[in-house]
Amino acid sequence: MIYPDEFEKLLESFKRFPGIGDKSAERFVYAVDSLDIDQVEEIANNLINFKKNIRKCKICGHLTNKDICNICDSNTRDKNLICVVEDSKSVFSFEKTGKFSGTYHVLGGLISPIDEINPEDLNIYSLVNDRINEETNEIIIALNPTVEGEMTSLYIQKLLEGKNVKISRLSYGIPMGADIEYLDPLTIIRAMDDRKFLS
Amino acid sequence: MIYPDEFEKLLESFKRFPGIGDKSAERFVYAVDSLDIDQVEEIANNLINFKKNIRKCKICGHLTNKDICNICDSNTRDKNLICVVEDSKSVFSFEKTGKFSGTYHVLGGLISPIDEINPEDLNIYSLVNDRINEETNEIIIALNPTVEGEMTSLYIQKLLEGKNVKISRLSYGIPMGADIEYLDPLTIIRAMDDRKFLS
Repeated sequence: MIYPDEFEKLLESFKRFPGIGDKSAERFVYAVDSLDIDQVEEIANNLINFKKNIRKCKICGHLTNKDICNICDSNTRDKNLICVVEDSKSVFSFEKTGKFSGTYHVLGGLISPIDEINPEDLNIYSLVNDRINEETNEIIIALNPTVEGEMTSLYIQKLLEGKNVKISRLSYGIPMGADIEYLDPLTIIRAMDDRKFLS
Repeated sequence: MIYPDEFEKLLESFKRFPGIGDKSAERFVYAVDSLDIDQVEEIANNLINFKKNIRKCKICGHLTNKDICNICDSNTRDKNLICVVEDSKSVFSFEKTGKFSGTYHVLGGLISPIDEINPEDLNIYSLVNDRINEETNEIIIALNPTVEGEMTSLYIQKLLEGKNVKISRLSYGIPMGADIEYLDPLTIIRAMDDRKFLS
């Protein structure tokens, strides 16, 4: 027991965070040591308030501090255009662009048999059962281009079969500003396959 | 305002920690989201308990949860051998070796005119006034080999002039396991100057 008890416990708390090992946790403890008690109490309160107040939107599943999130609750958002995403991180990424005027549906993960994540563990069925109606124009599937993403995308497409709704996915290709020299072969193949004719 | 209020506040809290930018702070917020309320309360309590209970040892200045730290309070530690260090981080580093049986004196920083840190801002005078007596055998100065470290070391040596006590410093040289090829010239010069004769 080199560290005092309270030091050790705070160290262990910090090591719960992703990518934080012994060294970083120790640096964080010293950072706390250099703060005022008011500032530390503020951080502690922010942790508790986040956990107590942030919940999932009852419509789309996005993180919110109300029953219905600002996006679902807005009059200016197109409720008939639904972008299906893996998690709230994706929602924030799209929102940062400021260019999407539809709404979202947050799955809360991707289907992954190897991790024992099945469709019923995700927020998938409410998309088909509660959100899609005759007015719905388009479902944009915006999942990561991974095995799990593709599997989940196919599953959703199957569920939507027979519904009178357009289904699209994000385009795959070369990311803006990238150097083709450093791109992986799969991305280059996708960019060739999905090439856009200019004339 | 893309994020809910509680999300934004927790994000700002995490950005107070060293090396934590927008992306890492966001990952931490999601980590909190995935914890139980009990676990989050535990982290919050650990923050508060650390700040409320951890203080400086009245003798050496090391971080402790009592008035006197375990090291100063121990019967098995040599009170007449005092290792002068910059901060508690150094104490923990020496303690991890398990090889030092003396006590410490934690300065709480180094003299640095450029940062307006003067001797009176540090825990220096108590070393000379309160800790050294006729019994004291040796003061080991264990400060980083930087301009500030050297300056502080010289200042302490000056204060101790005339006192009947041995003063030493850590040896400089090649760190164990290092490759000479990659060492900086200054370290190589030090290692040559301080070479140890084997016969």
